Amino acid sequence: MAGSLPCCNAMTISDNFPTSNEFRSDTFTVPTQSMLQAIAYCTVGDSVYKEDQDTLDLEAKVAQLAGKEAGLFCCSGTMSNQIGLRAHLHQPPHRILCDYRGHVYAHEAGGLATLSQAMVTPVIPSNGNYLTLDDILDNYIPDDGDIHMAPTKVISLENTLHGTIMPLDTIKEISGWCRANGVRLHLDGARLWNASVETGISIAEYCQYFDSVSLCLSKGLGAPVGSILVGERKFIEKANHFKKQNGGGIRQAGMLTKMASIAIDENLEKLLVGHKFAKQVAQFCEQNGIALESPCQTNFVFLDPKKVKIDPAVLAELAVKYKVKVMGYRFAFHFQNSPDAVERLQLLLKEAYQHSLAHPYISKGAVRIYRSAETATAK
Amino acid sequence: MAGSLPCCNAMTISDNFPTSNEFRSDTFTVPTQSMLQAIAYCTVGDSVYKEDQDTLDLEAKVAQLAGKEAGLFCCSGTMSNQIGLRAHLHQPPHRILCDYRGHVYAHEAGGLATLSQAMVTPVIPSNGNYLTLDDILDNYIPDDGDIHMAPTKVISLENTLHGTIMPLDTIKEISGWCRANGVRLHLDGARLWNASVETGISIAEYCQYFDSVSLCLSKGLGAPVGSILVGERKFIEKANHFKKQNGGGIRQAGMLTKMASIAIDENLEKLLVGHKFAKQVAQFCEQNGIALESPCQTNFVFLDPKKVKIDPAVLAELAVKYKVKVMGYRFAFHFQNSPDAVERLQLLLKEAYQHSLAHPYISKGAVRIYRSAETATAK
Amino acid sequence: MAGSLPCCNAMTISDNFPTSNEFRSDTFTVPTQSMLQAIAYCTVGDSVYKEDQDTLDLEAKVAQLAGKEAGLFCCSGTMSNQIGLRAHLHQPPHRILCDYRGHVYAHEAGGLATLSQAMVTPVIPSNGNYLTLDDILDNYIPDDGDIHMAPTKVISLENTLHGTIMPLDTIKEISGWCRANGVRLHLDGARLWNASVETGISIAEYCQYFDSVSLCLSKGLGAPVGSILVGERKFIEKANHFKKQNGGGIRQAGMLTKMASIAIDENLEKLLVGHKFAKQVAQFCEQNGIALESPCQTNFVFLDPKKVKIDPAVLAELAVKYKVKVMGYRFAFHFQNSPDAVERLQLLLKEAYQHSLAHPYISKGAVRIYRSAETATAK
Amino acid sequence: MAGSLPCCNAMTISDNFPTSNEFRSDTFTVPTQSMLQAIAYCTVGDSVYKEDQDTLDLEAKVAQLAGKEAGLFCCSGTMSNQIGLRAHLHQPPHRILCDYRGHVYAHEAGGLATLSQAMVTPVIPSNGNYLTLDDILDNYIPDDGDIHMAPTKVISLENTLHGTIMPLDTIKEISGWCRANGVRLHLDGARLWNASVETGISIAEYCQYFDSVSLCLSKGLGAPVGSILVGERKFIEKANHFKKQNGGGIRQAGMLTKMASIAIDENLEKLLVGHKFAKQVAQFCEQNGIALESPCQTNFVFLDPKKVKIDPAVLAELAVKYKVKVMGYRFAFHFQNSPDAVERLQLLLKEAYQHSLAHPYISKGAVRIYRSAETATAK
Repeated sequence: MAGSLPCCNAMTISDNFPTSNEFRSDTFTVPTQSMLQAIAYCTVGDSVYKEDQDTLDLEAKVAQLAGKEAGLFCCSGTMSNQIGLRAHLHQPPHRILCDYRGHVYAHEAGGLATLSQAMVTPVIPSNGNYLTLDDILDNYIPDDGDIHMAPTKVISLENTLHGTIMPLDTIKEISGWCRANGVRLHLDGARLWNASVETGISIAEYCQYFDSVSLCLSKGLGAPVGSILVGERKFIEKANHFKKQNGGGIRQAGMLTKMASIAIDENLEKLLVGHKFAKQVAQFCEQNGIALESPCQTNFVFLDPKKVKIDPAVLAELAVKYKVKVMGYRFAFHFQNSPDAVERLQLLLKEAYQHSLAHPYISKGAVRIYRSAETATAK
Repeated sequence: MAGSLPCCNAMTISDNFPTSNEFRSDTFTVPTQSMLQAIAYCTVGDSVYKEDQDTLDLEAKVAQLAGKEAGLFCCSGTMSNQIGLRAHLHQPPHRILCDYRGHVYAHEAGGLATLSQAMVTPVIPSNGNYLTLDDILDNYIPDDGDIHMAPTKVISLENTLHGTIMPLDTIKEISGWCRANGVRLHLDGARLWNASVETGISIAEYCQYFDSVSLCLSKGLGAPVGSILVGERKFIEKANHFKKQNGGGIRQAGMLTKMASIAIDENLEKLLVGHKFAKQVAQFCEQNGIALESPCQTNFVFLDPKKVKIDPAVLAELAVKYKVKVMGYRFAFHFQNSPDAVERLQLLLKEAYQHSLAHPYISKGAVRIYRSAETATAK
Repeated sequence: MAGSLPCCNAMTISDNFPTSNEFRSDTFTVPTQSMLQAIAYCTVGDSVYKEDQDTLDLEAKVAQLAGKEAGLFCCSGTMSNQIGLRAHLHQPPHRILCDYRGHVYAHEAGGLATLSQAMVTPVIPSNGNYLTLDDILDNYIPDDGDIHMAPTKVISLENTLHGTIMPLDTIKEISGWCRANGVRLHLDGARLWNASVETGISIAEYCQYFDSVSLCLSKGLGAPVGSILVGERKFIEKANHFKKQNGGGIRQAGMLTKMASIAIDENLEKLLVGHKFAKQVAQFCEQNGIALESPCQTNFVFLDPKKVKIDPAVLAELAVKYKVKVMGYRFAFHFQNSPDAVERLQLLLKEAYQHSLAHPYISKGAVRIYRSAETATAK
Repeated sequence: MAGSLPCCNAMTISDNFPTSNEFRSDTFTVPTQSMLQAIAYCTVGDSVYKEDQDTLDLEAKVAQLAGKEAGLFCCSGTMSNQIGLRAHLHQPPHRILCDYRGHVYAHEAGGLATLSQAMVTPVIPSNGNYLTLDDILDNYIPDDGDIHMAPTKVISLENTLHGTIMPLDTIKEISGWCRANGVRLHLDGARLWNASVETGISIAEYCQYFDSVSLCLSKGLGAPVGSILVGERKFIEKANHFKKQNGGGIRQAGMLTKMASIAIDENLEKLLVGHKFAKQVAQFCEQNGIALESPCQTNFVFLDPKKVKIDPAVLAELAVKYKVKVMGYRFAFHFQNSPDAVERLQLLLKEAYQHSLAHPYISKGAVRIYRSAETATAK
């Protein structure tokens, strides 16, 4: 398949492209031709011994972009988040505070308990979209000697979260308070690239407010594998110890890191293509009375499960009819979608929504906004 | 002090009694004369080897009261909760669901992460007071093969919680769903005794809906130390292994378990004295415009920190003036309070509240409803 | 039983005394009359809130005996060991080094992995009886940046171990190296009292070489429950947080701590009675060709399972015949043994050994030197 | 570098080849031309969603080779070992038994404690080279209800270990006992390929005796990244959950798995080249009086640190002189070594040994046989 990957130009992406109709996640994006060609020139040192030059280069490059001392290439965003949070934590009892939808809490298979022995305070943002300093203060547990408590040692933000951009002023305010109170601040910046290209605020400007940031390479950027954790050198060295413990020490990483480097060089601006598609679909939803759970600011559209009552089975059926791949109530967009597939997704949403008005889906319990276990039915 | 402990009769408890003015917690209750005298007749076997008869007898007695196969004497309610939940859990990733105010989540020093490698879903009850099946279904994560998830394996309820009684019908409904869905149901019944004497519903009737229940002996009942975990025999044996691991294997437990046995025999009905005091103070608060956070149904009064703005420093000052011991916005009552001390507490509340109207306390962040770290200032 | 406990005087202890024939463990010792009588005068404050005077007094008393800043009363030696080691450890990966027979490694139900996320290096002493600095250096893993490793952060010694006393010079040498290399040194001093009364070296002299020491109250000293952890104040405060997490926060601890205080005052010298019995039996064994696993220096006799082939079933049978309580190949002695019971134990050993010569016990796998699971058969 | 990788033919490998003089580890082997060329045809599905065909194919291929139901591609051997052992373990307290030199215990950064809450019994093989059933029985802790214990639930073997092949009969005997006693048996088969090509015993024949096997792709086989865990399907599904938790879920894995598949097809027999080199050097050592720690049976030579006293600093100096890369006392061989480099290594060993006779290296503590922290000095 890769051998004949068509050229990825958003203006001309055709319906033959393998991920043209892929709306389940931006992780499905595939490497571009220029990435694949670059493998021929990658280095093949053993990166466990810190001897692979392409990996060292990528780590330095992203660290510089983020204005941090050091970077660490990891197999996944889950790994860079989990080892980053772990490296901030010392002696339990301790607690991490994050948005209740935060990937580190909700979608990383309970790693915080196992790896970090950490309790979590999952906070529902009072404005519905992103945490503010007030939300944090309302839920923060100080380390004041009360032995009943697991005090809050780290705050973990996520930007973007459900496609929403956290305002820089909010970040500044939280960061200022954290630094004044000895609380470490981590950012799950899996899609900080999206926030950055959308707002024009540089990665470095965002990152200066955090002690550590995880940045994903294999989502909208299209690299095949990996994530980078950035922070101070000593912190990164400790994180590297946890990376090894987690089994994340890979040998000839050069081909992956070379490709990721090209992804950053060539695809950063292409993230805006996904944003354009998402906004088009969001507008379509609004025009058709389909309520959204979060404002569409980057590359996601989330339907509101409290107001939209589409039966997952109907969604799966229509996915076949309209030849698109969907999963739950979240729709992801990227530069490898074709305009035609986006149109077909709109038709699907309209038909599904009409059907739901007549046959509202009464779920037992929560409709999970997205869940990989449902993906099979939606192909 | 114990050598001259006055007789504990709620009608005649005098202000000289050491815990007459103790409103910080019902854990401060002291053993009665009959408990102390019984020590002379306690057994002195090594209970780690299951050879102490008084301990075996107490475990059997509470198991029978609860309608369960077996009981296990533990050093504390924290221990019986933590090892009980641990014994229900097998392979992570896994998750426990409970009320966001649940002791197991909020006040057990992060033990769930450390001992059980468990994530927690802390749920805010939609009715403000107790979880319902709908709350649970909205937050339940099934074990459906989605590898991003830590599925919900145990639900942990608490009764009473903030002094509020969970209705039996709600318990039945949740229990029925749990059993139908292979989810284990634990009860932190630290104060189930209070619910039982208040409602007339027997301990056994409550317990039949749970796989395990932790019942405290050293709160309102007045025993010096301990808690009992009840459940099926095999489950209790596994919990005993975790008890040993946690360092809870004590040797000549007989004196503690003999006293606890007498506490159950003699003091169960006396819990109602605490309820009477609490309700008197709650009524007083309502008459004086002092908003409560939870309805007063048993032995606690909780002020509403969103509406009542009493400065903790003022509270501490007035505690000295009125010769009562308080801690935060929670007031605990028990049969060892004196009527005079309860009157003085009311005067304190009135004066503190009046002061707060003129000088509202603007906290940075959350006012913790109770916190042991503040206790020193309140003595 | 306790109500009619005979006076515990080693010269006159009668065969009617409940623990006169108890050779399974010194944990079976029962409280003396003076301990029981003291309960009438114990304090009844809530020790979770650090308000119980007898508990504070005992903690201060043992801290002073040990020459340390602070002490912490714990439910058991397992608890004081586990939370002490935990409080020394910060970020994993980390590793504890101890004798392969160390209680913290071998008999605390795997707590080091669960509570401390710690790997253990269990070392076989090259001299057969106690670790030396050379043993430690041969197995020490430095924190030198090798990410494959879990470096050794704490060394945990045990004194006495299998009844053997670790020489003070060895302790000094190990301690000096630890301090020079930033490695923390803990002592499981469950029976340091025995070493101290036997050698005349004070508890303080022993303890000065350690960062923390756990001292048991409910073994040969006869207190019903508990152990004390001593160390620097800040360390003890952290350990107290772990104690609460482990469920070790008990309420009216005064009766237990008062009794323990009396045990220290009255029974320290009586440990020598147990030593005398043990040495008598050890000599008897040697005279009868029964090989010992460890030299008898304090209150234990351990048979050598590689040379002595007594069938556990035969041991259990003879225990009934000779009216003594035994468990495995370890025999424990204490001041509550009667001389007659010690004589009967000797007869048992002789008969069992004679039988074994004709009918050697061929175990599948290891004969565990002592194991509580066998205790029932030996009563 | 990769763009101009010379052809890897062991007969003609030249000194220009980047890994020709690499004796630190077989993990330094680089991908061959045919692997790199195959990337052009790899699939690019998202392997987290189990949609990448090349990854599914490799998993099926190795599972079939091993005679197991299912396989799981992992980022590293550490990951496949750790999640494999984790998936065998359920409720602690539990314990894993392995050789004291086992990678899972000694070189995986303490993962067993963190991920699995597992204690480890590291056993010194009585024959000096590999564990036997007797060794295991001497150290096995049954699950017999003794609450002091963490019973042995999994035995983890390693083949090859220090280059030594475990005899099939020993494996059979251990496996038979494990199955009869409900103990799970895992194999760290990082270099089982080497054992198999050396003995002619098939991978399937070896694997039938184990519940799970981890097989490495990026050691002597030369694939850039990865390891495969094989076992029953249900077990593999559970392991996949732990893989995700550990951050091992990678997206477009196809290029890595396609290369690994070719490595198996083309390089299995080439392992014998490394064996030939190793045996040549081992013989040279013996002829020159340089004592080996383990018999040389596959691709490693280990010097005996108890008898050979080469100063690491001298080794590093001579490595520069002889233009070879070495690390500690372990020398690894592979098909990408050149005959010339092997000759130079021999000269180095001879000179270093001669020097050591005059200037024996007296280490403080243990000489670690290999350690990555020393690698910089040895380049």
